Amino acid sequence: MIKEKYCLFTIFGATGDLAKRKLYPSLFRLYKRGELHKHFAVIGTARRPWTNDFYRQVIIKSILELIENEKQAAHFASHFYYQSHDARDTKHYITLKKLGEKLKKDYYINDNQIFYLAMAPQFFAGIVSHLKSQHIIMGKEFERLIIEKPFGSNLKTATILNKEITKSFPEKDIFRIDHYLGKEMIQNISAVRFGNLVFEALWNKKYIDNIQITFAESIGVENRAEYYEVSGALKDMVQNHILQVLSLLAMEAPKRFKEKEIRKEKIKALRAICKYTEEKALKNFIPGQYVAGDFDNQHFLGYREEIGIAKNSTTETFVAGKFFIDNERWQGVPFYVRTGKRLTEKGTRINIIFKKVAENLFNEQNNRTALPNVLTIYIQPTEGFSLSLNGKEIGQNFQLTPLKLQYRNKASILSNSPEAYEKLILDVLNGKRANFSHWDEVARSWELIDVICNAWDNYPQKIPTYKAYTMGPHEAFELLEKQGRHWEWKPDEWYIKRGKL
Amino acid sequence: MIKEKYCLFTIFGATGDLAKRKLYPSLFRLYKRGELHKHFAVIGTARRPWTNDFYRQVIIKSILELIENEKQAAHFASHFYYQSHDARDTKHYITLKKLGEKLKKDYYINDNQIFYLAMAPQFFAGIVSHLKSQHIIMGKEFERLIIEKPFGSNLKTATILNKEITKSFPEKDIFRIDHYLGKEMIQNISAVRFGNLVFEALWNKKYIDNIQITFAESIGVENRAEYYEVSGALKDMVQNHILQVLSLLAMEAPKRFKEKEIRKEKIKALRAICKYTEEKALKNFIPGQYVAGDFDNQHFLGYREEIGIAKNSTTETFVAGKFFIDNERWQGVPFYVRTGKRLTEKGTRINIIFKKVAENLFNEQNNRTALPNVLTIYIQPTEGFSLSLNGKEIGQNFQLTPLKLQYRNKASILSNSPEAYEKLILDVLNGKRANFSHWDEVARSWELIDVICNAWDNYPQKIPTYKAYTMGPHEAFELLEKQGRHWEWKPDEWYIKRGKL
Repeated sequence: MIKEKYCLFTIFGATGDLAKRKLYPSLFRLYKRGELHKHFAVIGTARRPWTNDFYRQVIIKSILELIENEKQAAHFASHFYYQSHDARDTKHYITLKKLGEKLKKDYYINDNQIFYLAMAPQFFAGIVSHLKSQHIIMGKEFERLIIEKPFGSNLKTATILNKEITKSFPEKDIFRIDHYLGKEMIQNISAVRFGNLVFEALWNKKYIDNIQITFAESIGVENRAEYYEVSGALKDMVQNHILQVLSLLAMEAPKRFKEKEIRKEKIKALRAICKYTEEKALKNFIPGQYVAGDFDNQHFLGYREEIGIAKNSTTETFVAGKFFIDNERWQGVPFYVRTGKRLTEKGTRINIIFKKVAENLFNEQNNRTALPNVLTIYIQPTEGFSLSLNGKEIGQNFQLTPLKLQYRNKASILSNSPEAYEKLILDVLNGKRANFSHWDEVARSWELIDVICNAWDNYPQKIPTYKAYTMGPHEAFELLEKQGRHWEWKPDEWYIKRGKL
Repeated sequence: MIKEKYCLFTIFGATGDLAKRKLYPSLFRLYKRGELHKHFAVIGTARRPWTNDFYRQVIIKSILELIENEKQAAHFASHFYYQSHDARDTKHYITLKKLGEKLKKDYYINDNQIFYLAMAPQFFAGIVSHLKSQHIIMGKEFERLIIEKPFGSNLKTATILNKEITKSFPEKDIFRIDHYLGKEMIQNISAVRFGNLVFEALWNKKYIDNIQITFAESIGVENRAEYYEVSGALKDMVQNHILQVLSLLAMEAPKRFKEKEIRKEKIKALRAICKYTEEKALKNFIPGQYVAGDFDNQHFLGYREEIGIAKNSTTETFVAGKFFIDNERWQGVPFYVRTGKRLTEKGTRINIIFKKVAENLFNEQNNRTALPNVLTIYIQPTEGFSLSLNGKEIGQNFQLTPLKLQYRNKASILSNSPEAYEKLILDVLNGKRANFSHWDEVARSWELIDVICNAWDNYPQKIPTYKAYTMGPHEAFELLEKQGRHWEWKPDEWYIKRGKL
């Protein structure tokens, strides 16, 4: 069985951060695993006037931590070619085509090609159009496009972008990256849901009280001010990652566990999410923006004080909200979502909060009632599961006490675990699309998000603030407390700060 | 709030093993906790001609490991009085009464009395009858009887014994010890079942494939040959401990979590267990007897070679079997039980094996099917829970892999945890009967066990053998394998021996 994949990669944005941090290391890992071997080449393009030699030095530097054998690394880097390139300039594509043709010959690559758009989204449409008009894509073998987020900034711009792109690539060859879909524990959601009777049998409104999805970052806006100011947390995180996770949690069981069937169910789930009116969106989605705060003897700037941010910016660095799904399985079950920067702790978690036991048998002799069971899926940086149960407190009396069953992926497993980008690039090489966003998913997500953005635009209010290193504005807590619920994940520090520990 | 309990204890069998290993240490723990303080005294009786001084030395020796303060220990021991006593001799009860009256005065105890029968069962009826005829029990305050197993040797003898005893003590004052009911994790069964929606909702034939109860001992018959030869594993373990645990697992939810309601449901469950014909009993219950075996470079004698055991003994040192419960909840769900001496590993465990997921979505791309979920309750020596699930194997492909959520009681908790006997004696002082066997339970258990004994007696067959330090005869494995099942708990060593690891 030949494992090696034949392919010419063309990376747009080859000098950028993403390429250096993720793409080159991932390609090198695939190379070390033998997925790439002799018959591949990479053309890196960007505006800077680098030489091949300099480019290869950059490659080596970006994979430094992964090198075990210098000769191997040098050999890997020798497959990389740089072309200085203005993405808007037609004649550059002529050169690009020539270089591509040459490399395909030199490396005995067939006509398999992957184009990776790792640059600012305003260039996406132009590049793709040139690839077609300059006959760089020719309809031979596979020709696949990998495209980074954001895919548009609302339904309208996304639709225009998609129209442009599909002139050159059919949907089946477009791989929209949502790197969370490459993460082990996200992929594990379906295994855990459908592979276990104890959850599958309970996965509905009869037994589940609510579901909570938290994507928390402790970092601030860092050097992404330009992008973030126009995006904000809702578009940056909810429109893509969070709605993808939500659809995996909410979808019906696919007939078979195959790409096409899974996608069908995910899209159905997204379509079943209630689209709010603007009035309802205002009530159900809370933006937030961090102000200066102190944590662990360090001072952190507020968002408006950060470099590149407008002094009167109204961009949300936090959003909390709830979605409902209007179908038989989920009617009335809130899906709470929450994401933000400068939160107390970095981490992505899903909490499935089950209903309480119907009648609390234990009440009479026991002031402590049974807490609801909670299944927690730890996505990152911790990877694992926990199930919160009630047990008997040790001692003479019959008192209930919470206990937690735990499972964690071991560090030794984690270090051998493929990175999200590595898995996703290999998926593209294999033509597997399950872990990428389909246009129908993107479109529906924008529909849901647009209403919220419009509501915020049309009913401007003072944006709620939260101190850096807290878990968001108090309105985000009230969203649940009004209904007698609470965020299941409360980082310890947050708790300590509020004097509740 | 006065915590101290007022009570005069009379222990029959004061020089015996149980008294020294369990009762004195438990009384001392209660003393250290303040449950016993000034107003208690203990009369120890037995045939040997000990003095008070010697008896108190024995007490001190038996609590040696628990002593933190010698003065306290001496003070505790000073409450103990010895009376040499022939349990069959009436005049000894006259002396006993006098001593009791004196101690009640000396220690300002009211008329609370506890009588502890920690001796051979043939004396039970005689002692109890003398207590009444000699007016040692007078119907003042509380007068409670603690009685050790065995309670009879079949339904007939148990009924006779019970008739004798209830002439002196009403059922409400009889505390039949089943020390497993004092164990934390047995008491935890109800908390886990009824306190957690994720289990409560699944606790029936729709979701549970089978339930397994294993009480494994690694020791041999030791110095209990005389008793064990006439008892055997079935009467020694199944009639009491295992059927008690089974009834806790199988009972319907009590209306309230109160002693009376719980007992009612336990009795209902025991009555719903199918009573076999002798033919069916033969098929469904497998006896076994250990023969010599080597383990860990040590040689172990066979049962028939042990001191005090007949060379042609047919006593079972092992039994495996299955019960069915004929009610709506459990129809068709086998409850497999297993216990024995000289097994591979010491431990008491309950395994709840859930059914497989209805349709295996993953089959097509995956040779590994989803294993059934298993909830394991570790009773001893490990205390805790685990839940076996299926997750996704880390890596590019979507392969299922087993993973286990775990919870263990911490060692620090365990060391502070009250011993079974300590808890049970305090229950008696408090008049709490939930953790003792009611006559109706004992009677029904004998009914179920008698059929099996009769079957073995009436259809004598060569008893299946197993080597010391294995998990029983192969017939015990076939019992499940014939139905496509297996014992969930396979000690590693057993696995290794059979070359399956």
